[in-house]
Amino acid sequence: MATPLRIALAGLGTVGAGVIRLLESNAGLIARRAGRPIEIVAVSARDRAKDRGVDISRFAWEDDMTAMAARADVDVVVELVGGSDGPALTLARNALSSGKALVTANKAMIAHHGLSLADAAAAAGVPLKFEAAVAGGIPVIKGLREGAAANEIERIYGILNGTCNYILSTMEDTGRDFADVLKDAQELGYAEADPTFDIEGIDAAHKLSILAAIAFGARIDFPSVETEGIARLRAADIEQAAALGFVIRLIGISDTEAGPDGEETLFQRVCPYLVPRDHPLAHVDGPTNAVVAEGNYSGRLLFQGAGAGDGPTASAVVADIIDIARGELGAPFSVPVAELKPMPKADAGHRIARDYLRFMVADRPGVLAEIAAAMRDAGVSIESLIQKGRREEGGEVMVSIVTHEGPEANVDRALELLQGSPSLTEPPLVMQLLAS
Amino acid sequence: MATPLRIALAGLGTVGAGVIRLLESNAGLIARRAGRPIEIVAVSARDRAKDRGVDISRFAWEDDMTAMAARADVDVVVELVGGSDGPALTLARNALSSGKALVTANKAMIAHHGLSLADAAAAAGVPLKFEAAVAGGIPVIKGLREGAAANEIERIYGILNGTCNYILSTMEDTGRDFADVLKDAQELGYAEADPTFDIEGIDAAHKLSILAAIAFGARIDFPSVETEGIARLRAADIEQAAALGFVIRLIGISDTEAGPDGEETLFQRVCPYLVPRDHPLAHVDGPTNAVVAEGNYSGRLLFQGAGAGDGPTASAVVADIIDIARGELGAPFSVPVAELKPMPKADAGHRIARDYLRFMVADRPGVLAEIAAAMRDAGVSIESLIQKGRREEGGEVMVSIVTHEGPEANVDRALELLQGSPSLTEPPLVMQLLAS
Repeated sequence: MATPLRIALAGLGTVGAGVIRLLESNAGLIARRAGRPIEIVAVSARDRAKDRGVDISRFAWEDDMTAMAARADVDVVVELVGGSDGPALTLARNALSSGKALVTANKAMIAHHGLSLADAAAAAGVPLKFEAAVAGGIPVIKGLREGAAANEIERIYGILNGTCNYILSTMEDTGRDFADVLKDAQELGYAEADPTFDIEGIDAAHKLSILAAIAFGARIDFPSVETEGIARLRAADIEQAAALGFVIRLIGISDTEAGPDGEETLFQRVCPYLVPRDHPLAHVDGPTNAVVAEGNYSGRLLFQGAGAGDGPTASAVVADIIDIARGELGAPFSVPVAELKPMPKADAGHRIARDYLRFMVADRPGVLAEIAAAMRDAGVSIESLIQKGRREEGGEVMVSIVTHEGPEANVDRALELLQGSPSLTEPPLVMQLLAS
Repeated sequence: MATPLRIALAGLGTVGAGVIRLLESNAGLIARRAGRPIEIVAVSARDRAKDRGVDISRFAWEDDMTAMAARADVDVVVELVGGSDGPALTLARNALSSGKALVTANKAMIAHHGLSLADAAAAAGVPLKFEAAVAGGIPVIKGLREGAAANEIERIYGILNGTCNYILSTMEDTGRDFADVLKDAQELGYAEADPTFDIEGIDAAHKLSILAAIAFGARIDFPSVETEGIARLRAADIEQAAALGFVIRLIGISDTEAGPDGEETLFQRVCPYLVPRDHPLAHVDGPTNAVVAEGNYSGRLLFQGAGAGDGPTASAVVADIIDIARGELGAPFSVPVAELKPMPKADAGHRIARDYLRFMVADRPGVLAEIAAAMRDAGVSIESLIQKGRREEGGEVMVSIVTHEGPEANVDRALELLQGSPSLTEPPLVMQLLAS
């Protein structure tokens, strides 16, 4: 049997314990598929004594993660510490500069520092892999980077956050409101005690920025992702969408277009969308993730599965390790990092879309006329308008509009015209209809 | 720039022309992703003069495919000739014995000769790749072989034939009968003039046997795939399934189980199934393919996309070529071919399932009693029985039964008891309910 591939594992939370369990329970088949055994030699975490349900006494313990990254008996460092900076980033840099391959599940770190880490990996001539950072157990980075490698990718989009998808599909099934369902999700472990990263779309934006870099050969640009979360959605929006033949999903979406000077610009947005019921993403329920890549030859490819959880995430981490054991040594972002293009943020204003606009308004005469006039003055063409007879609490009425196709800038302009209107009891909510 | 990877292309049908177009239109990005340019140097087909919409005058022409496979200026032979034996197989063998990498889209050849070709590739130390042989443009072989490599695969199943799926989903949408929709499919180019391979499930069985080998580390065993096609389905079956909350899809499904002596046995079946409407495969319409792999850590992974067509198939062929350019050299069936286990065919009789049974019977007293008695005597427990009031032509009546869970052997026994009964105007149709 060939020499083992030796692993140092930093971070022993649920995913770290999952990786240990997986490597143990599937050891035989992994060795056959990888061509060599995979052995954990050292581990590190904050608390050595904590009961994790796995036996870590077989592995060398390192209090100092950084020292672990430099061990002579280690080939691959697996970073499962989390956090975009701090110990995780220090560990990652030390691992690469020590000539170790790096495998990480850390989407925040890759979104913020993926390029400098890829530089370091290229300089050291070692692999940097992060399949588990996007869409949990789904091999979507591999699918995009290798499976779709022959294609110019025209658009990539998907459901990238399981927490939001659980909340939205549960609101849909039960008719309950956001806050109520969030509380349940927290109790069930589908949402964190502080759910900000998930429900504000930041986690999905991390993942989208990574996918966009691979899909379009662009330098990662997380700060330019337009991000809008799901916290303002009401049960009534979901009901209204359903009546129109749509479900609501938090979608991350990216493509490229020619900018004003002909340069390639990058569009990246995370936002709740109305998804037509005949679209595959409309049937993705619960904490599932799904990514669609549209290639100029492949057509629409869909990858779907568990977006989180210790088992699926461990599956993706170990898939990366097996690739390394097999000798796979491709560029982390498909093309060499030095060839990734800096792409300015695309100007979304001229993009053509259909929108769903929802207004909460005071129940008094003239409000509808005011909204309709703003739409007309901004050049927004209304396809349907529904004022809900049923009153919300506090004398509020819900007015929802679906527009005809038109430039995003016109809708923005209409909302500007209505800004500060005493008729509106809260800022309008805008969601696009996903174009299939 | 690194030295080009040099391709010889055999077979210039729609897929071959698609590969030429793809390599030309996406040349720049492919070279960046592959790390080197990919160049066609020689081509071969039956008719040199035929207009294929692509310029082949740039390439060396070889009348003799076998000679082409041995050219000193070729690194990779791409076989797109088709047919399980004959010229395609001769070409494949010659390419490998000449030390060339082989890329093929030929499912029949891999299902029949994949093991001996993998032996030859291992002996020559060259890659053998066939992503395009299964599910067209969907990178499912890569997903299974690499993306899910950390997992013991518990079950693999999917929609593997676009022609059947187009016919079934069109029957569902329009209420029309099989023969009628098949004729349309032929006119639209979704079905061949001789549709036998597709509608009898043979094409899906080829693909299933390849997936099963990779998923379970089993030696390919195409002859032991139980195969049943879709030609006997009636519009009334689809209507009946819909009333019960199901759609009908031709599914290939495989898993392993312990045999009577504890040895691992292989279950492989292609058959129309009743798919519950809340299952992702129930929403796969038209000529689309989709494959589900259930891993013991990843959970359910779904890969979906175009199952055929020149663009998607070319996308998969070129993905294989890019992998070769990048230096990927893994075992074609995930583990070395010598380590694939011979697995006897599983005995399906004791498997537990729910079935849909459809009888066409003469409209006369006592028929229902006869069927019910056979079910009782064979130990089949009936969940629902519907006799359609509406008469079919010729005084026939349709009786459809859904059973409770029970061993397959009991249903077989019930059908044996009814065999030869003058009450039945045609043999019963049996479909299982897909267990999710």
